[in-house]
Amino acid sequence: MKIVIVGASLSGLAAAVKSRQLYPESSITIIEKSSQLAAVPMALEWLFKSNEGEVPSYFDLLEQLKTLQVDYFLNHEVQSIDPAQKRLSLRGAQVSQLSYDCLIVATGSTQKSHYIKGGHHPGVLLCKDDMVRLEENPLFVRAKEVALIGGGQLGLRLSEKCQSLGKHVHLFEAGEHLDFKHCDADMAALLETSMVESGLNLYLSHRVQKIEKCHDHFLILTKSAKRSVDVVLMCAGLRPNTHFLEDQHILANDGTIPVNAFLETKLPQVFAVGDTIKLDFLQENDPRYLPLINTAIRTGEIAAYNLNGPRIAIEPSVKLVSGYYYGWFRTAIGMTSDEAELFQEIAVITYKGSLTHDRGEELRMKLIVSRETGQLLGAQLLSAMDCSYLLQCLVQPIRLGMTDLEIAFQDFLMTVGQTNPFYHLHKALLMSASAREV
Amino acid sequence: MKIVIVGASLSGLAAAVKSRQLYPESSITIIEKSSQLAAVPMALEWLFKSNEGEVPSYFDLLEQLKTLQVDYFLNHEVQSIDPAQKRLSLRGAQVSQLSYDCLIVATGSTQKSHYIKGGHHPGVLLCKDDMVRLEENPLFVRAKEVALIGGGQLGLRLSEKCQSLGKHVHLFEAGEHLDFKHCDADMAALLETSMVESGLNLYLSHRVQKIEKCHDHFLILTKSAKRSVDVVLMCAGLRPNTHFLEDQHILANDGTIPVNAFLETKLPQVFAVGDTIKLDFLQENDPRYLPLINTAIRTGEIAAYNLNGPRIAIEPSVKLVSGYYYGWFRTAIGMTSDEAELFQEIAVITYKGSLTHDRGEELRMKLIVSRETGQLLGAQLLSAMDCSYLLQCLVQPIRLGMTDLEIAFQDFLMTVGQTNPFYHLHKALLMSASAREV
Repeated sequence: MKIVIVGASLSGLAAAVKSRQLYPESSITIIEKSSQLAAVPMALEWLFKSNEGEVPSYFDLLEQLKTLQVDYFLNHEVQSIDPAQKRLSLRGAQVSQLSYDCLIVATGSTQKSHYIKGGHHPGVLLCKDDMVRLEENPLFVRAKEVALIGGGQLGLRLSEKCQSLGKHVHLFEAGEHLDFKHCDADMAALLETSMVESGLNLYLSHRVQKIEKCHDHFLILTKSAKRSVDVVLMCAGLRPNTHFLEDQHILANDGTIPVNAFLETKLPQVFAVGDTIKLDFLQENDPRYLPLINTAIRTGEIAAYNLNGPRIAIEPSVKLVSGYYYGWFRTAIGMTSDEAELFQEIAVITYKGSLTHDRGEELRMKLIVSRETGQLLGAQLLSAMDCSYLLQCLVQPIRLGMTDLEIAFQDFLMTVGQTNPFYHLHKALLMSASAREV
Repeated sequence: MKIVIVGASLSGLAAAVKSRQLYPESSITIIEKSSQLAAVPMALEWLFKSNEGEVPSYFDLLEQLKTLQVDYFLNHEVQSIDPAQKRLSLRGAQVSQLSYDCLIVATGSTQKSHYIKGGHHPGVLLCKDDMVRLEENPLFVRAKEVALIGGGQLGLRLSEKCQSLGKHVHLFEAGEHLDFKHCDADMAALLETSMVESGLNLYLSHRVQKIEKCHDHFLILTKSAKRSVDVVLMCAGLRPNTHFLEDQHILANDGTIPVNAFLETKLPQVFAVGDTIKLDFLQENDPRYLPLINTAIRTGEIAAYNLNGPRIAIEPSVKLVSGYYYGWFRTAIGMTSDEAELFQEIAVITYKGSLTHDRGEELRMKLIVSRETGQLLGAQLLSAMDCSYLLQCLVQPIRLGMTDLEIAFQDFLMTVGQTNPFYHLHKALLMSASAREV
């Protein structure tokens, strides 16, 4: 079997390593358009590091790959596909072609800033494309004033990194609060306070309409503000890299590749993974675009399992995210209250607790449940210590539609007392039940 | 409503605090036979402390209780119950009586050493009874040579504590390896090595048959060994404290109180919780005696919820235990392989991984699955850092009978790389699937 993987994205690498394990007799080839196999942008690399100086765990995958029998071609971009002949045409130094038995599309995503005038200027750095060596980019190195566009996960992580490098950072977010995809306004407010206290300039409800290049700097224009900066980092608007499939008429309007539960596309023996696809969110038949790290790994590996025929169907995503921003460990799962109340009446509880005996309130937990049934719909956590594992334990309960009371009395290991994280979770769930007047 | 709770055990205190929250109008009275409300033995207190010097989280519950409107009578033991009149007769300084509307039996457990000749000597300290102030017990303070009988969770924790106090410790275990209730021989062997290296004398497959008092020391006699020590700590043979119910003819042969899923006994408005009852293990209709901390808290609180009529049914236990022993964080859940293979053909995988980049093997994980279906039956973990949360995430999957492959591809948050605990779990589960040749 000849397996070709397009894109050395995280998902592509996971697919390659897993394919090598599963099909020792097959040939495996990765096609990567950039000049390096580690096509992971700085922003993501930083996401992988919990502590400065730590080796990003991502590189383990690369290391693993180097010891395996996997071919790769760098600086080669797939131009088009002939699904009948099972053949790709590539553009590298010269045009070439490559046939496959199984193809895995793992071309990832990039920022599309078409809605911002001037967003295509080469001086505007795309955080998924241009930032592989941001610290070595002369434009960035010289810059004092840095604009970040987009206050989602990437923007949050990058802004802190830029500040740590001595930059003066201006973060523009179109929404009313930061990271609205994963976080409600009240939880975001805690982060926002920490950010502003650190010296960051935060522009909320500021949709960037235009970026003007003036001499050696850029003007950022929103409805109500104008700001001059030295460099612009685009952190919003992730869209799939799927141009080469456009003439196959299989793409969705947003450029994603429709797949079934086995990650098969409509083209024979062509699979799509990672940031190129939509995944069901919480339940079947609710596909969303969720360009997340765990999705990348899960889908890459599952596609590998299914190359010889359907074996593993992917479960809906619960949208679990976690990161360390401005002194807070932040984890979120499921729906925000803004999302949830579109569908049903909800009850929301905000729980404050302490993780140490000096009684500080270093843990904030928010639970969103159906008011009628108590079904847990989502949870958000901010804490001074890493408690992300608490929400990891909610993956299965949320997926199954379990209620606050049912989850509270799961046989989790907990000791009583005000500093035990699992006891906090237990108490928050009971508080939710009593808020519903059960 | 007049609520009476017999026993200031962990379970009794949890029931009291929860009852106070749920029934603000009711009166609540705790009857405790010992002289203090904190009737938690040293061995347990130490279990609650992860680090020396830390305040045991248990005391939070006590503190909470003191601020609530709860009456208590110390040095009062319940002698008998009149379920028709809903009345207890108590023995304290004098005989007294107390009526109730709802009664919660939370009398806990103690060591019964009837199978050891001489085990009833007052110099033999029972780790659930006598050790409230072990460090102040003159017999213990003077002792140089200490015998511990029973190598389960309590024995493990106590032996390390005794060594840290400068004692020379002899640990006798009747089974072939330590803590066989939660741990297979290969995992126990790692602990045993660390223990012996620390200077402990370990006697495995040594059932203590007789304890002889000779002058100021004790002789411990097994089939093949005789050992003289200064003090004996009994850590095995936990049995429920339920004498006062004996004439009601409701007790099981082992002294436990049969209850339904709402923790109701056969006596009207009498509930039983904690170490006085058996709980279903993994599935309905398989009751086991599982005197564990989480069971104590869960059952105490659930009984409180059900006082006014059935509201919350208890889920079967998954037997999740965790502790820190001799440099290892040890966590276990579900069946050991010895237990599991009584019921079905199993596959067992042992996974070794690293939690740091120096590539030490500081994580050992053992998974036990059904060979035919891949259903996860149990898991055991030893690690240099606390990774107990990994097995917390298996509570629901084990309870539901999910398979290794299904659990592996849950939407857990993981980054790739050899040091990410959730990626280790993911890989171990895939290794299990491939061991079954899926």
